[in-house]
Amino acid sequence: MIDIDANKWKEECGVFGIYSREEDVAMMTYLGLYALQHRGQESAGIAITDGAWMDVTRGMGLVNEVFRHQLPHMDNQYIAIGHVRYSTTGSSLLANTQPLIVNYSGGKISLAHNGNLTNATAIRKRLEEEGTIFQTSIDTEVFVNLIARSRKAAVEEKIIDSLGQIEGAYCLTIMTEDKLIGVRDPQGFRPLCIGKMGDTWVISSESCALDVVGAEFVRDVEPGEMIVIDDNGLRSYQFAEKQKRASCIFEYIYFARPDSVIDGQSVHDARFMMGRVLARESGFKGDIVISVPDSGTTAATGFAYESGIQFTEGLIKNRYIGRTFIQPTQQKRDTAVRLKLNAIRSVVEGKSIIMVDDSIVRGTTSGKIVKMLRNAGAKEIHMCISSPPIGYPCYYGIDTSIRKELIAATKSVEEIREFIGADSLHFLSIEGLKQCVPKLNCDDMCYACFNSSYPVDLKQEHTADSDKYVFEQRKKDK
Amino acid sequence: MIDIDANKWKEECGVFGIYSREEDVAMMTYLGLYALQHRGQESAGIAITDGAWMDVTRGMGLVNEVFRHQLPHMDNQYIAIGHVRYSTTGSSLLANTQPLIVNYSGGKISLAHNGNLTNATAIRKRLEEEGTIFQTSIDTEVFVNLIARSRKAAVEEKIIDSLGQIEGAYCLTIMTEDKLIGVRDPQGFRPLCIGKMGDTWVISSESCALDVVGAEFVRDVEPGEMIVIDDNGLRSYQFAEKQKRASCIFEYIYFARPDSVIDGQSVHDARFMMGRVLARESGFKGDIVISVPDSGTTAATGFAYESGIQFTEGLIKNRYIGRTFIQPTQQKRDTAVRLKLNAIRSVVEGKSIIMVDDSIVRGTTSGKIVKMLRNAGAKEIHMCISSPPIGYPCYYGIDTSIRKELIAATKSVEEIREFIGADSLHFLSIEGLKQCVPKLNCDDMCYACFNSSYPVDLKQEHTADSDKYVFEQRKKDK
Amino acid sequence: MIDIDANKWKEECGVFGIYSREEDVAMMTYLGLYALQHRGQESAGIAITDGAWMDVTRGMGLVNEVFRHQLPHMDNQYIAIGHVRYSTTGSSLLANTQPLIVNYSGGKISLAHNGNLTNATAIRKRLEEEGTIFQTSIDTEVFVNLIARSRKAAVEEKIIDSLGQIEGAYCLTIMTEDKLIGVRDPQGFRPLCIGKMGDTWVISSESCALDVVGAEFVRDVEPGEMIVIDDNGLRSYQFAEKQKRASCIFEYIYFARPDSVIDGQSVHDARFMMGRVLARESGFKGDIVISVPDSGTTAATGFAYESGIQFTEGLIKNRYIGRTFIQPTQQKRDTAVRLKLNAIRSVVEGKSIIMVDDSIVRGTTSGKIVKMLRNAGAKEIHMCISSPPIGYPCYYGIDTSIRKELIAATKSVEEIREFIGADSLHFLSIEGLKQCVPKLNCDDMCYACFNSSYPVDLKQEHTADSDKYVFEQRKKDK
Amino acid sequence: MIDIDANKWKEECGVFGIYSREEDVAMMTYLGLYALQHRGQESAGIAITDGAWMDVTRGMGLVNEVFRHQLPHMDNQYIAIGHVRYSTTGSSLLANTQPLIVNYSGGKISLAHNGNLTNATAIRKRLEEEGTIFQTSIDTEVFVNLIARSRKAAVEEKIIDSLGQIEGAYCLTIMTEDKLIGVRDPQGFRPLCIGKMGDTWVISSESCALDVVGAEFVRDVEPGEMIVIDDNGLRSYQFAEKQKRASCIFEYIYFARPDSVIDGQSVHDARFMMGRVLARESGFKGDIVISVPDSGTTAATGFAYESGIQFTEGLIKNRYIGRTFIQPTQQKRDTAVRLKLNAIRSVVEGKSIIMVDDSIVRGTTSGKIVKMLRNAGAKEIHMCISSPPIGYPCYYGIDTSIRKELIAATKSVEEIREFIGADSLHFLSIEGLKQCVPKLNCDDMCYACFNSSYPVDLKQEHTADSDKYVFEQRKKDK
Repeated sequence: MIDIDANKWKEECGVFGIYSREEDVAMMTYLGLYALQHRGQESAGIAITDGAWMDVTRGMGLVNEVFRHQLPHMDNQYIAIGHVRYSTTGSSLLANTQPLIVNYSGGKISLAHNGNLTNATAIRKRLEEEGTIFQTSIDTEVFVNLIARSRKAAVEEKIIDSLGQIEGAYCLTIMTEDKLIGVRDPQGFRPLCIGKMGDTWVISSESCALDVVGAEFVRDVEPGEMIVIDDNGLRSYQFAEKQKRASCIFEYIYFARPDSVIDGQSVHDARFMMGRVLARESGFKGDIVISVPDSGTTAATGFAYESGIQFTEGLIKNRYIGRTFIQPTQQKRDTAVRLKLNAIRSVVEGKSIIMVDDSIVRGTTSGKIVKMLRNAGAKEIHMCISSPPIGYPCYYGIDTSIRKELIAATKSVEEIREFIGADSLHFLSIEGLKQCVPKLNCDDMCYACFNSSYPVDLKQEHTADSDKYVFEQRKKDK
Repeated sequence: MIDIDANKWKEECGVFGIYSREEDVAMMTYLGLYALQHRGQESAGIAITDGAWMDVTRGMGLVNEVFRHQLPHMDNQYIAIGHVRYSTTGSSLLANTQPLIVNYSGGKISLAHNGNLTNATAIRKRLEEEGTIFQTSIDTEVFVNLIARSRKAAVEEKIIDSLGQIEGAYCLTIMTEDKLIGVRDPQGFRPLCIGKMGDTWVISSESCALDVVGAEFVRDVEPGEMIVIDDNGLRSYQFAEKQKRASCIFEYIYFARPDSVIDGQSVHDARFMMGRVLARESGFKGDIVISVPDSGTTAATGFAYESGIQFTEGLIKNRYIGRTFIQPTQQKRDTAVRLKLNAIRSVVEGKSIIMVDDSIVRGTTSGKIVKMLRNAGAKEIHMCISSPPIGYPCYYGIDTSIRKELIAATKSVEEIREFIGADSLHFLSIEGLKQCVPKLNCDDMCYACFNSSYPVDLKQEHTADSDKYVFEQRKKDK
Repeated sequence: MIDIDANKWKEECGVFGIYSREEDVAMMTYLGLYALQHRGQESAGIAITDGAWMDVTRGMGLVNEVFRHQLPHMDNQYIAIGHVRYSTTGSSLLANTQPLIVNYSGGKISLAHNGNLTNATAIRKRLEEEGTIFQTSIDTEVFVNLIARSRKAAVEEKIIDSLGQIEGAYCLTIMTEDKLIGVRDPQGFRPLCIGKMGDTWVISSESCALDVVGAEFVRDVEPGEMIVIDDNGLRSYQFAEKQKRASCIFEYIYFARPDSVIDGQSVHDARFMMGRVLARESGFKGDIVISVPDSGTTAATGFAYESGIQFTEGLIKNRYIGRTFIQPTQQKRDTAVRLKLNAIRSVVEGKSIIMVDDSIVRGTTSGKIVKMLRNAGAKEIHMCISSPPIGYPCYYGIDTSIRKELIAATKSVEEIREFIGADSLHFLSIEGLKQCVPKLNCDDMCYACFNSSYPVDLKQEHTADSDKYVFEQRKKDK
Repeated sequence: MIDIDANKWKEECGVFGIYSREEDVAMMTYLGLYALQHRGQESAGIAITDGAWMDVTRGMGLVNEVFRHQLPHMDNQYIAIGHVRYSTTGSSLLANTQPLIVNYSGGKISLAHNGNLTNATAIRKRLEEEGTIFQTSIDTEVFVNLIARSRKAAVEEKIIDSLGQIEGAYCLTIMTEDKLIGVRDPQGFRPLCIGKMGDTWVISSESCALDVVGAEFVRDVEPGEMIVIDDNGLRSYQFAEKQKRASCIFEYIYFARPDSVIDGQSVHDARFMMGRVLARESGFKGDIVISVPDSGTTAATGFAYESGIQFTEGLIKNRYIGRTFIQPTQQKRDTAVRLKLNAIRSVVEGKSIIMVDDSIVRGTTSGKIVKMLRNAGAKEIHMCISSPPIGYPCYYGIDTSIRKELIAATKSVEEIREFIGADSLHFLSIEGLKQCVPKLNCDDMCYACFNSSYPVDLKQEHTADSDKYVFEQRKKDK
């Protein structure tokens, strides 16, 4: 099988939660997860409660695949939380799907998590030394053990007590038998927002899910804030001191859906602006502007707007590719990119082309696209990337794996251009990027994958041999 | 379940065939069908032969779903034909999947068909009166019975003999134990082209499938031509007198992939030109040009080019919708469009918008999109359609069902505009449309769904009560 | 995978039909087929009609597997026919499942068939020469073509007309939009009986299915009789002259369920008597009588009764073996029998054992069981078989394939005993067998597999190279 | 759906383990579980290790269903443990399947458990108070937490330390990365035995699994014994003082397979003797002895032997019933028993029948069988049960649920006879039962379900409102 998006960074997860005496909460969560599907295509789960029983349905696959037969049996509940998980090979374990649902001294609790705890290994080691067992390799299990061991009385206090012990990036949706709780880490790495329709409360990784379920956007959850929703409405707790904010800039570059608004900044507008700044910075001239669909398209239209050069479709993307597409025989390996993309000869033939993409991770796909365009007759190919070179791994919930695979970690821009075979190559500068999120304080963002300025002091656990599979108890799939 | 594209016309089918002593013909056919998937998402089938045995694998679902477990067992063959079938509810019968494979006095033969025979009912009635049984409701079974009853000696002659008896639109791929045969009807309604790589011959509904399998485009099959491929290479037979050509203009408007070239005309270029002519014809002014993705995008970029008004993404399409998406509860029916499309508020708010779509069939989806844009703050919505109003059914392989559902059959443009709720509405004129296919003789096209000038004299069988389910032996799904 | 019953003869099929204005006919057919499951585990199908539509659901697998999700969608019909098909590898084609359902000049008709037409190849050849195509390799398709080509007016006449052209063994259930029809061949090879509950009519291969659905046994269908059931009740037609009857004696030995009564003779009583006669004929003495479960048990209890030697369980059968059990590694091949059967050491150790089984086909399983008993400490093993040696193939609906595999075709009883490793071996004599069906005229039975007195003159088509896969258009499974 | 064996007690589980440098341990475990399938049809699991990785495959369904696609991917390991779990509705959770596999401070460990801890609730409560979370409702998770919290150094010591804290019935198979461990509780409630082939060690709930995999029986694990197998061979630890033994007598009556030998006593011989003692105790006379197949057959043959009355098959069992058989419509409810069993009229008509069954739980099925026999013409029905009346629940690993459902808890034998409709009814006496296990000290058995002499002092947790679902976090299936 081929992983057709193998050269893209993978968002770790998306979360959703709903508290309603009016709506079919499982159905709403299903729709919400469907809108968040781009944040994780590997597995999905929904936990529900009617106030007495608590139950979870989880499975490998797309939201629709996991729930189409189950959903009719999940009605008549009043709180639900849901989770979608990213797709990679190594850790595709059914046991690692979320939400978790556990019994502890305080009753039943269910959790779903987007992000990555940077001190999970240390906490886990400590908990194991104290006699705790772990059945999964996900951070969520570490966190729920902290809650269970807290000496505080109320569940809200137990959670706050536990939050004090963890570091890193986390957006959590938590459900007890009578409360829906949302938490965003003190630096605000990952997005989390609040919506409302009637007396129904919704929390979601992205605002696009509010649109789909028909909820009005209320506000973003603030960094370091915990919100608790029950029959008394919404209460807010600031569980952590104000820290330097470090929201992930890559949400605006690639992860989030263009129709989402995160922390007041439209994702579409940021991407459009990236295209405009790219046009200014690169000064590239050509006959047409094309994009690598779909993620490069918004920036490409911005480039066209700024430069006055016509935007045209030059590459067609096949919409039907499944997650388990069979790989053609070895000698046909180049087919993999052709299955996904095809150049339109009549558009590109004899043209000087400006091609916009969002990022370059390994560079191999970019190289194949350039080759495909040349085979279709393109005269010149000037490539514009709407992000700076990614030279450093991310430890906050993105699967960038080890640094060695990042082409920008070892090659200069000129070397990358040569590797890809483009006539010109321009990466958006960090300074340029900062101009693209005018609704935000651009210094409140995390640019660590570009400049290695990690907002959290990373302990010894992120050494060369450690990686996200540190808890994995299973051999990689053959 | 919701049929998310219920308001689009459905192409009936796509066909593919390959003859090779070098390649894995089943794998190549699988890749070819995958590239033709947009022509039919309901079922797929591949028939193979190694010269002695002949076998077929067929199933409901996308190409990838049907074949992912089967493909490894289909190697070591040397001829293959494949078929994808459109998606509608009524005739989703496993029994109706193609290719057919039958035994007759001449041996084994397998057929796949794209199109619609306009005299199938009459032939079928005659054959039944002569004692023939029918196990499916597809035209292909009618045609293969004609072949079996032909008194001619060679299979090529039997086929030509049978072609003389049928009327309507058909592209056929036929396989015997040692020949691959392609046929295009005398008026050339549906596309069929020939490709080659090394000594391997390929035939395909569209050229995009040649690109995916790595074959060079050789030429289109001519109307009225039958090509026969065997170890002696390709032979051509002109089985019918030259007739007035009537190629389907809708292939260029919506059905075909933009990266295909049909009869020498690039589909992308035709669509881009439709946008340009729309800009000229409508004279619409606005702040931005947006499209209804994905099918309206090419024309929208053409409109932007011609008008000088910026093209921007205003609607985001969810890429993960499955064919069997669960329908939300009744009161949430509006959710259906929101699941598929979402407006980007920051783009459309306060703007005068020119929105380009390819066609309007029933008008209900268009109405919901207009409402969605207004809810997102759009000031004015000027809608441009890159086809003339569809006022008449198609009898040549398109599921336009009965005329009553076509909004343009009963409403004027102004009434449609009002129904949809747009501020303006412009349909491309037929004259304008004719300018968009400069590589073709525009009088060689079929515009019957716009102007009812059916190129074939339609007999009594297309009366009110006849429709494509005429042979259907099964109740519609509940 | 291992075929755990690979050494047993395979019944070809079971059929069931119901006509009712009161009952859920699909549910009743499902229950009936479930009771007939022993007659075919490979595939199952049910065709239904409500008088207007006619529909069929067919699939590979057990009745329960094929219908558990479909049955709820099959209600509100008033006629149904069903079919179960035997399990072998070669012809496990979905296309070969029954009932067939076709359109012809007389409307819609559905058929299911148990048996084997001995002149099918000749008819098929003739029909192909006249231009008929064949999409399956089952006799039913041959027969329905005869019906469609009949010049007679009424469907009953068409059927009778067609019956005049076929030879061999057949029990047919046929359904039109308003009639249920049952047919038994003139020699009565295979069983077919009629039941009734209230105004509901039922026809079934065996009476055990009447018991399960709660119908009273009315009578057997007579050889050469066609019964037609509609709103006017049941009408009988004798379509063929009285011929010498030739009912299959093997139904009483192995195929039918012991709780069925066929043509007035209880299957259980026949088997019990076989055991009694075996005791008399063999004169075997021993400490205990055991059976090879389950098919040898009834005769074993008869042997015990006649001989006064105690019947005990000496072998335990695993009830959970599936049709697709994974085969252990090559060196563990002996495991196959151990998976199915295990000896009880405390029962057999040091004992002289009389073991009763119903038949020996290839002899390999018998040999493994003898070895297993010796390993468990058995002192002497005297084997009794409740049928004569099978030395000749069956052409009337049983998959005995070619004669070479039949151990009794090439080996004497003494040679078989030596091959198996038993201390003694006795086969029931044909004369003895004739005493076991006192309710029947024992000369009205077919004993051809024992003595080669085939009741129908077999034409040239049953030569060495012809076999039941003669129509097969597919390679055997790899 | 109908649970066709709803009136039988359910064994909780079966366990299997293997340590081998020679065999395919996953395949052997699969075969072993297949032989133990009668101990649990609800779910199955196999954990494997190659010394470095540890992995588990678990699923709902029969052994064959869960593993047929997985087994080829489980080769090249050297230790495996497996588990089958009983079938009831309430707790059919995927999360509750075994073996468990966890990380703790000592590394990785996997466990599978047959039995029931009578102080699990108390331990669980204590652990929760100390901050432990629980993700399942199975006792195994309680036990593995005790191991993880032990302060002892070696894993053997940790296990022994933990065993000191638990009470009740347990047979455990435990696997670390280099050891296979088997444990049997101090009173020996459930069986566990050791087998060997070459240098391969096997442990199994019953000896029939040793036969299937081809291992020689070595000995039973003693009550209170822990065996540890590694490359140094087998070591034995007596972890508990000698206590009064209390092996479950019901293993001999119903649970175990007749071909198993448990603690030196053949299960078949015990059952055969039960039939003999029944004949003596009851003094019943009749024309024939029949059984309720399959579980009543061994005792029925014993009754026949003792009484001299002929054993005959009077009821035929359908072998094809699946676990998810669709229930007929309400008015056809009686069909449920007919689907499973059918009377042979020719055998029972006009006869005085002695019918032997193993036990009566609710009595409803027995009543339906009696009615079925009377409908088939039986003159008198004398029922013999090869166990005493079950008047008390079991707390040692059997799903007898609450006492209210046990007919013998509230009705006298005469009232039960009347309820069932038999002419006579005799239950084996406890004294009679004790004669049937001559190889055992009959006072070393547990008869608590018959006489309420529970061998372990049951604490307050077994009050009316507690039951086995005490940890269940999920609503019962709708």
